[in-house]
Amino acid sequence: MTTQDLIEQIHKKKSFLCIGLDTDLDKIPSHLLNEEDPIFSFNKAIIDATHHLCVAYKPNIAFYEAYGIKGWQALEKTIDYLNKHYPEQFTIADAKRGDIGNTSARYAKAFFEDLAFDSITIAPYMGKDSVEPFLSFKNKHTILLALTSNVGAFDFQTKKVGGNELYKEVLEVSKTYEGAENLMYVVGATKAEYLSEIREIVPKSFLLVPGVGAQGGSLKEVCKYGMTKEVGLLVNSSRGIIYASDGKEFAIAAQKKAEELQMQMQEELNNLK
Amino acid sequence: MTTQDLIEQIHKKKSFLCIGLDTDLDKIPSHLLNEEDPIFSFNKAIIDATHHLCVAYKPNIAFYEAYGIKGWQALEKTIDYLNKHYPEQFTIADAKRGDIGNTSARYAKAFFEDLAFDSITIAPYMGKDSVEPFLSFKNKHTILLALTSNVGAFDFQTKKVGGNELYKEVLEVSKTYEGAENLMYVVGATKAEYLSEIREIVPKSFLLVPGVGAQGGSLKEVCKYGMTKEVGLLVNSSRGIIYASDGKEFAIAAQKKAEELQMQMQEELNNLK
Repeated sequence: MTTQDLIEQIHKKKSFLCIGLDTDLDKIPSHLLNEEDPIFSFNKAIIDATHHLCVAYKPNIAFYEAYGIKGWQALEKTIDYLNKHYPEQFTIADAKRGDIGNTSARYAKAFFEDLAFDSITIAPYMGKDSVEPFLSFKNKHTILLALTSNVGAFDFQTKKVGGNELYKEVLEVSKTYEGAENLMYVVGATKAEYLSEIREIVPKSFLLVPGVGAQGGSLKEVCKYGMTKEVGLLVNSSRGIIYASDGKEFAIAAQKKAEELQMQMQEELNNLK
Repeated sequence: MTTQDLIEQIHKKKSFLCIGLDTDLDKIPSHLLNEEDPIFSFNKAIIDATHHLCVAYKPNIAFYEAYGIKGWQALEKTIDYLNKHYPEQFTIADAKRGDIGNTSARYAKAFFEDLAFDSITIAPYMGKDSVEPFLSFKNKHTILLALTSNVGAFDFQTKKVGGNELYKEVLEVSKTYEGAENLMYVVGATKAEYLSEIREIVPKSFLLVPGVGAQGGSLKEVCKYGMTKEVGLLVNSSRGIIYASDGKEFAIAAQKKAEELQMQMQEELNNLK
């Protein structure tokens, strides 16, 4: 999917919501556990109930890997279902990979070609040759971790490297990578005020913003400091939406939570014009 | 496996060799492609031919993920085979994971409990709460990326954070994490002279050293600057051993390459006494 396609979807749906599929057998409604593939059944129900309210889905790969081969089967079924029934959705493999060149090339093949995700999250620690193999894929997007929403972000990311905090150095340096036009960035919503400084470095790039909702970030603040003329934001919510209820009506409950966020986003998009 | 068990194995085998299982269908001998599970067949042959010469095996998870469910099946069979037939081997999931706490906990469960690896490689960018879930497992080891052997290492790892290079900051800060006694570190052999400064910060920790062989590092230099009284080194070679030949005698060729390294290691261990 091209960035332009994503922007069109945002305006069409009046939403820049990304729904995180952190599917956990301990948290999904217990009646689903009798199904042949409870993880996929849950995902399918959530997707069918929310697809008109969001522009992106983000399976958190750890949750699938934790269930071994069954988890991978559920992941494959989920991405195949999305690509077949809702090809307008931007799909994000939240994998946080990154390794030496020949190994990153393997991950890129796995997620971009075999699983056919539109994008993947990548950790920047190993630098240029760990990121560029992902950037060489046309119309695929690499979402580099810049400033994450967890407390550990203060261990290294916010420390000064020369005059700049490390996360700003990541933004600056990554702009020089071959294929940098395919970069997006993860920026946690719990530090919305950092977004204005981030926008000075990457004025147009799309930012994937986790941490709205369960992790305490404010959508209004994120838009105030981070929104661009072409929106430039994907705001993710996972647990706040998908675990809105653990009863039989879980998908409807998720829909309502997604709708609340979509309505707030619609307001922000109206302000943009 | 405890660190003490690992040290005993090193002295018993006179080797601190780790063999990287970067198994690639494009590189393994073509006669194996007719087998039901070529990846596992290759790994099994390599392991059977080399287990007496090394103390650790390190499957590079990307190479398995690249083949989807078949790859995961081959990975499961490989780790099960190692744990059943060669339980004295220290097993490393070269996964370079790291995410927010609840997600890292999932990865820890997947690799330490379900797959039953002794250790996993982890990227430090997301800090404390992304690493500690791995450290809470008893007799399991978390191998944190400090200084990697690729060119991208110079993008961020060697940049100064305050007075220290970032990789040294990673060493210092990680020592304060809960469960830090379960930490080991990745330090690339291509920068062996950095090892003496690293030893000032982590005088006793085990270091996993990739980059000897194919990536150009020298074993002698690594030992000179990095070896401790209790050895403290695992030196990895992947392609240089497992792809020594692509003929029918590939396992014997791998054995010879492993033996060459083991002999050099024996000499270094003798010098230690």
